Amino acid sequence: MTESPLPISFLSDYGYDDEFAGVCRGVIVAAAPGATIVDLTHGIASGDVRRGALALADAVPSLPPGVHLAVVDPRVGTTRRPIAVRAAAAERIFVGPDNGLLWPAIEGCGGALEAVDVGESRFRAAEVSATFHGRDLFAPVAAQLALGADLAACGAGIDPGSLARPPMPQPIVAEDHAVAHLLYVDHFGNAVLDLGSADFRTVFGEASEVEVGLGGGRRRAQVAVAFGDVAPGELLVYEDSNGRIALAVNRGHAADDLGLAPDDQVLLQPPP
Amino acid sequence: MTESPLPISFLSDYGYDDEFAGVCRGVIVAAAPGATIVDLTHGIASGDVRRGALALADAVPSLPPGVHLAVVDPRVGTTRRPIAVRAAAAERIFVGPDNGLLWPAIEGCGGALEAVDVGESRFRAAEVSATFHGRDLFAPVAAQLALGADLAACGAGIDPGSLARPPMPQPIVAEDHAVAHLLYVDHFGNAVLDLGSADFRTVFGEASEVEVGLGGGRRRAQVAVAFGDVAPGELLVYEDSNGRIALAVNRGHAADDLGLAPDDQVLLQPPP
Amino acid sequence: MTESPLPISFLSDYGYDDEFAGVCRGVIVAAAPGATIVDLTHGIASGDVRRGALALADAVPSLPPGVHLAVVDPRVGTTRRPIAVRAAAAERIFVGPDNGLLWPAIEGCGGALEAVDVGESRFRAAEVSATFHGRDLFAPVAAQLALGADLAACGAGIDPGSLARPPMPQPIVAEDHAVAHLLYVDHFGNAVLDLGSADFRTVFGEASEVEVGLGGGRRRAQVAVAFGDVAPGELLVYEDSNGRIALAVNRGHAADDLGLAPDDQVLLQPPP
Repeated sequence: MTESPLPISFLSDYGYDDEFAGVCRGVIVAAAPGATIVDLTHGIASGDVRRGALALADAVPSLPPGVHLAVVDPRVGTTRRPIAVRAAAAERIFVGPDNGLLWPAIEGCGGALEAVDVGESRFRAAEVSATFHGRDLFAPVAAQLALGADLAACGAGIDPGSLARPPMPQPIVAEDHAVAHLLYVDHFGNAVLDLGSADFRTVFGEASEVEVGLGGGRRRAQVAVAFGDVAPGELLVYEDSNGRIALAVNRGHAADDLGLAPDDQVLLQPPP
Repeated sequence: MTESPLPISFLSDYGYDDEFAGVCRGVIVAAAPGATIVDLTHGIASGDVRRGALALADAVPSLPPGVHLAVVDPRVGTTRRPIAVRAAAAERIFVGPDNGLLWPAIEGCGGALEAVDVGESRFRAAEVSATFHGRDLFAPVAAQLALGADLAACGAGIDPGSLARPPMPQPIVAEDHAVAHLLYVDHFGNAVLDLGSADFRTVFGEASEVEVGLGGGRRRAQVAVAFGDVAPGELLVYEDSNGRIALAVNRGHAADDLGLAPDDQVLLQPPP
Repeated sequence: MTESPLPISFLSDYGYDDEFAGVCRGVIVAAAPGATIVDLTHGIASGDVRRGALALADAVPSLPPGVHLAVVDPRVGTTRRPIAVRAAAAERIFVGPDNGLLWPAIEGCGGALEAVDVGESRFRAAEVSATFHGRDLFAPVAAQLALGADLAACGAGIDPGSLARPPMPQPIVAEDHAVAHLLYVDHFGNAVLDLGSADFRTVFGEASEVEVGLGGGRRRAQVAVAFGDVAPGELLVYEDSNGRIALAVNRGHAADDLGLAPDDQVLLQPPP
């Protein structure tokens, strides 16, 4: 084959202290010299499948077509299936554990057309460990897919309708208020909610302020476009770069300020 | 165009927990397949423009000519300008916010020859978010510059003399002492001062010891070349690899030991 | 030379906050355009030569042949030698400080065939700092080796039998118990011991449980294959992906739970 390998994006919760992500990169480069690897992040909190799923789904529209390798896999080595999935969108192939991690990204690419269980893949390592499927199963399969292998050649066909979905909270959107939940806190301390900007506008229109009700109390937040639109230290509500409503403190850390943790409920209503 | 794209270096404060830096890499690879991306660091403290500016300026002499993308941008989406700048040194092009971040590196490359505001660039994303200009403005423009686009084609011309400079402390160099400030603390705990090694030698000559005066007290430090030249746990003053005077503790963490934080004043004088 | 450069793997304790690892990558890309750099990790704890040595040795079998650059170098600039070493396995070349960091990986590649001191290498930077040999010595030499330079051209020959070995603890394997030590704690909190799985089976056979004796007390652990084989929060003993015995807590952090730190002694014996 003389064509270039497809690019491979790579997301995991392997962290940055150990060699785990690097070893997977090595496996890919050894099998598919010249493949471009785009590291998305390896800093997903250990075992946080939902955060990994959101990060992957949010990133894919910015990525070149190719193979999307993702490993956040607290049940590695047990009955959860290791899978590779071809999405409806052209040349979007996902590789990772079937625990919900891949689903939102696949859904964003039009759904799953074809799926295989790669547990017994001909491309897996000669010996497969029970705890490092990134190295022994997923990276080898991703490399072969990048080289042009057919999905069907990578494992045993499974029902694309059977893929696991990650549990997600559901916001309540009422006439005069919304009850949202914290999906995750980003590196800057911004608290991202499970509320889309369209729903927010339905409830609040062009309001310039909202009241934010948390476990213990209430805070006034300005509705703003960018962090610097409010004074340093002030709370704002804004549409983030993925279309979700989020809370931020200009030059501060909103989640720490508000004492918010993932899944916490946040009541948004007009100020009194 | 059959030539290879120029290499693109990339520095930010996006951190390693989220997909932000990875998304920018994806945008670049999608637009400029085959471009070499050199990640400098994405661990600049959130919004720490001065640290980012120093890291970039210190790195550029080691980097191949090409495009230098840098994003530490607390005022993203406000009136600060998103810019691209051609420096006097051949093929050194800088892309990022006009908040001082790029200036020391540009100055190190002989100053700015040509600058454009890329806010309305033809190369920006179809929709530009208010909070993720790395993805929507800077990475797309950097990719096109790497592919050979003219700077003038990337945005509206601005006065290269109007670029923002970052605030920097100024050391006092007297006949028998120096008053310096902590610029930053590196990963090893070394405390880097705003004092050049030439100034240090002017004051202290070939002294083997100096007295280090901090807020609360005084400490004796050996003047040394390398960390291992003093016993483990001992304080040393040395010229760091960028020509600045720094304080270190062999096998220890100088900034923690001394209770130093950025901008703290440090008095250096001969021992009594 | 028209051939592609050899791949270069890169491990260090430079961390992710500063530009240090990025600067070394820049040096390599500037000297050897098109070279593939595989970052293993830059998150080795500062100066932890043993952890770096284990990470490198564990990674190399997954890496493509080429140059393996590693820098964990607390004695940089002192009498420890900067070296490059050709291992017995074809095209496995190691570059870094001669402090034990490279040894286990070299040993895993059949031992050292040829070694040079690169302190005065013709390929080093024009000015060599005392504290950043990654930039000034090791990366330049690694780049030339990747381009095909002979090892002998990179420095002054030294006795391959004189290379430093890292101090490693020694487990005691008795008829009915084993005394092991904590080698390191990984990102997931798993506590990796200096006990191989073969030795473990010699003592415990197919036992389903073992008693783990620590400084202050005793804990029962299930012998399991994968984390998810025990209930969340439960302690397990398992063979890790590098063939070592390790302690984990499913969905937890074993080292924190057990209060374990590197070099702590761990007694393993059959439950009473």
